[in-house]
Amino acid sequence: MIKTPYLLFLGDAPDALAAKVAQGIKDWRPENAIGQLRLAGCKADMGLPDMTLEEARAAGAETLVIGVANRGGVLSDLWRDCLLEALVAGFDLASGLHTLLRSYPDLVEVAQSHGRVLHDVRVPTVNYPIANGVPRTGKRCLAVGTDCSVGKMYTALAMDATMRARGMKATFRPTGQTGILITGGGVPLDAVIADFMAGSVEWLTPDNDPDHWDLIEGQGSLFHVSYSGVTLALIHGGQPDALVLCDEPTRPHMRGLPDYKAPSLEVLRETTLAMARVANPACQVVGISVNTQHFNETDALAHLAAVEDRMGLPTVDPFRQGADRLVDALAGI
Amino acid sequence: MIKTPYLLFLGDAPDALAAKVAQGIKDWRPENAIGQLRLAGCKADMGLPDMTLEEARAAGAETLVIGVANRGGVLSDLWRDCLLEALVAGFDLASGLHTLLRSYPDLVEVAQSHGRVLHDVRVPTVNYPIANGVPRTGKRCLAVGTDCSVGKMYTALAMDATMRARGMKATFRPTGQTGILITGGGVPLDAVIADFMAGSVEWLTPDNDPDHWDLIEGQGSLFHVSYSGVTLALIHGGQPDALVLCDEPTRPHMRGLPDYKAPSLEVLRETTLAMARVANPACQVVGISVNTQHFNETDALAHLAAVEDRMGLPTVDPFRQGADRLVDALAGI
Repeated sequence: MIKTPYLLFLGDAPDALAAKVAQGIKDWRPENAIGQLRLAGCKADMGLPDMTLEEARAAGAETLVIGVANRGGVLSDLWRDCLLEALVAGFDLASGLHTLLRSYPDLVEVAQSHGRVLHDVRVPTVNYPIANGVPRTGKRCLAVGTDCSVGKMYTALAMDATMRARGMKATFRPTGQTGILITGGGVPLDAVIADFMAGSVEWLTPDNDPDHWDLIEGQGSLFHVSYSGVTLALIHGGQPDALVLCDEPTRPHMRGLPDYKAPSLEVLRETTLAMARVANPACQVVGISVNTQHFNETDALAHLAAVEDRMGLPTVDPFRQGADRLVDALAGI
Repeated sequence: MIKTPYLLFLGDAPDALAAKVAQGIKDWRPENAIGQLRLAGCKADMGLPDMTLEEARAAGAETLVIGVANRGGVLSDLWRDCLLEALVAGFDLASGLHTLLRSYPDLVEVAQSHGRVLHDVRVPTVNYPIANGVPRTGKRCLAVGTDCSVGKMYTALAMDATMRARGMKATFRPTGQTGILITGGGVPLDAVIADFMAGSVEWLTPDNDPDHWDLIEGQGSLFHVSYSGVTLALIHGGQPDALVLCDEPTRPHMRGLPDYKAPSLEVLRETTLAMARVANPACQVVGISVNTQHFNETDALAHLAAVEDRMGLPTVDPFRQGADRLVDALAGI
């Protein structure tokens, strides 16, 4: 686990989009973020207090989280100087960048000499077991998509927030680097060795109270040929009791695959349910989450209503409408 | 690629079953095996000439292949002395054992000082790409199972042998350590990082002549919750034109999963075909391969006839009957 609270490093982010990891932390775990650190030229702003390393340490920050994507795949000298100072000032570092912190000898050396930890959250640090398929206590909900990057993580985080606001027992279970940085722990599933994928998901979602829900972050899609194996491992390792179907209806083709069309929600429902019931015969599809960011409000509501009518399932865009109706739909499970 | 031909190391195998890797090489690539090396007490015999290291080198052997499972997960001193002598005598070493050759400093040191290669075939050595899903030329056949260890590798090897005997263009494509040792190369799929599984299968089965068939070694089962993600990556990375369904009808439950029943062949056909057609809309199920080792001849033939009648597909046990009818079934694809 990454020690909280965080100071969010925004570097010299060229725009707000580059700082989407920091935005995710700010949106979903504001209690984890006590300030932001921006270098000259930074165009992103989380609306948090700007702090020096020393101010943030004095305020209790334990980890400097790189909340911004770097350009060109290398850490600039500007960034590295700041990261080295942070280690000296007493911070651990956490990063989801492709470029690993541990690949920089100077960072490794200063971290060691000061007793600090470098968290590269893309790299598994646990020896996961092989999945045993044994049923576990507690409930689990998994978001599955017609494609990659259609809003599965957002949907799970929104449901988790709604459930906790209602006083329900719920835990968001991250399976990717952004989710891991938001909460401080999880499984970087796309980097796990094939044989241990499903086992890592079992490890992530252990026995729990009968009325506790894990909201498992989805990955990929059963219909995305590059990553479908990861998705099936999530479905079989997660043993979900409830599935939420996620869609982004304006894609001309599957992400990164120009010759592949996304499946219909009907096909997604049928296929996923058949696979999920291998591990959990009681699994049900409880609702649909549609990312309507490319529609205006009128068109979005019309689309959501049409899908709900067609599919016979509560259908919302949690970004526009909140996740209440999806959480309501868990009540009967 | 592992250099051929091989000298097969049978060590002090306690019985024939312990030497099944050597048996596989002898059965399927006899041209790769010019002799066997047995230590005192060895109870296995491939019927190959017994050779010393020096005799085998003189006869042209390039690699000493560990064709036997070790007991207790460590290399005994007896084995290590022989392996060290082999390196000095000019052999590369190849092993599919869980215990890696490279984990023994003495083997590493002698290999380096003598310019020899240690092949641990459980460990990927290629940086595989992420799958791009682009259709490839040539034909591909994949064996898929109701469960793990039902005869998928045997089926693919038998079809490959039959096709080559007929003068057809065919290549067996190994995805596990035994297959890799038999042929000298392949992908150790269960050890590949999740994001690159499907890409490794694309890499293994590249563009080829229009009348060339890849016989892809299957792994796991879509219905085995521990390994199903690996299977789906094979289906989507392999883009099979033809599927052969594999079954072992006497299993009381899925292998290693006491509470899971194997699916029917009908469910296997329907589910696998739906998934396979995402990557290759022309994919067809061409036949069924049943492992009838637990039946007597009469019962085996009756079972095969009943399955063929029920499923409407050529149904054989390639161990009893050869793979001719499965190969015939590829003709229309």
